[in-house]
Amino acid sequence: MEAPSKRVQVKRAAERGNYDRATIEAILDEALICHVGIVTDEGHPVVIPVIHARDGNTLYMHGSPASRLLRTMKPGAEICLTATLLDGIVVARSAFHHSMNYRSVVVIGTARIVDDPAEKLAALELVTDHVIPGRWAECRPVTEKEIKGTLVAALSLGEASAKIRSGGPVDDDADYELPIWAGVIPLALQASDPVPDGRLVDGVPLPDHVAAVVDGGH
Amino acid sequence: MEAPSKRVQVKRAAERGNYDRATIEAILDEALICHVGIVTDEGHPVVIPVIHARDGNTLYMHGSPASRLLRTMKPGAEICLTATLLDGIVVARSAFHHSMNYRSVVVIGTARIVDDPAEKLAALELVTDHVIPGRWAECRPVTEKEIKGTLVAALSLGEASAKIRSGGPVDDDADYELPIWAGVIPLALQASDPVPDGRLVDGVPLPDHVAAVVDGGH
Repeated sequence: MEAPSKRVQVKRAAERGNYDRATIEAILDEALICHVGIVTDEGHPVVIPVIHARDGNTLYMHGSPASRLLRTMKPGAEICLTATLLDGIVVARSAFHHSMNYRSVVVIGTARIVDDPAEKLAALELVTDHVIPGRWAECRPVTEKEIKGTLVAALSLGEASAKIRSGGPVDDDADYELPIWAGVIPLALQASDPVPDGRLVDGVPLPDHVAAVVDGGH
Repeated sequence: MEAPSKRVQVKRAAERGNYDRATIEAILDEALICHVGIVTDEGHPVVIPVIHARDGNTLYMHGSPASRLLRTMKPGAEICLTATLLDGIVVARSAFHHSMNYRSVVVIGTARIVDDPAEKLAALELVTDHVIPGRWAECRPVTEKEIKGTLVAALSLGEASAKIRSGGPVDDDADYELPIWAGVIPLALQASDPVPDGRLVDGVPLPDHVAAVVDGGH
């Protein structure tokens, strides 16, 4: 499969490049946050962590860390959204061949500020349920004022590529004879036991949709 | 403590801004990767995951995912390096107040390509030992050819800020009476049991410095 554009084509270690839509979507859906880069009026880049969610071919971005970013985005200006999942530390026999196993996606495009209240509401539901599936239906609904006070941006997935490194170390032929340990240390973002808020109403049990985040890993 | 510059000053949720050097260094040292943003010749941003390490006031960047980035960096051009640690999912009573606990650092500055072989070698040692403390001394040393074939960039920590969100949800006063579960789901990047390479020389045991990565968490 070919890259949708030169600028998202994976050049370095091109065999790790992947333009398969299902692969790209799976990485974006698994990532809890992404990093969004913009170019400021002064011409330098700023990169900020952002909570996102996907609806088909559209990525929505939201969250207070994003606000400066979203406010700074100029209409028509291009942004870059990158999501990275760390899967492991690749321990090689030589220092040179140490690496990381990862799955990353880079999307470049023109972000659109979402003004339509219905699309905004749908995006907020998506983002909430992206982080905790099933949460939206269980919490106090958003008010009109809250929707107005929230910034949501949308980015098309039209120009996206994935880059994936997996498997063990690839050492120089001669190094395989060295009595040096090599392998992979798996890494994963893990959720642990939920900590109830101190002001919880008496008797409110841990809901299944919250427990599922811990059981399912993240 | 004041921000070193306007452009790294935390504006949104300013109480989460932190310009304390020890705090900034601790976040950078704990993060296994960071995301680096550059502005291309065409004027759009590109954000790429990069492995980094810190030596006092200098951040070194390295790694094959970084190569395109490092090759694209123009002398004198400013870059933005952002490291983010995800600490938890903040589950609020209202959809609006859901959040993430995180610690992030943003550094803006002009990157310098490291040409001096001695500085490059020291940087590679730092990066290797940043990911697996003690690894450098245990593996086959790098060759001159490998050092030449490696790209390393350096960035001063002069213009950096941290942003931190911690603790439980902050709900609207009226919402505290709702019988809705709220709290925090802690998140952490966890290492699990190392997987030895299939071509390991017989009898090579798992070294302590690799086991320590798993025990220490990452």
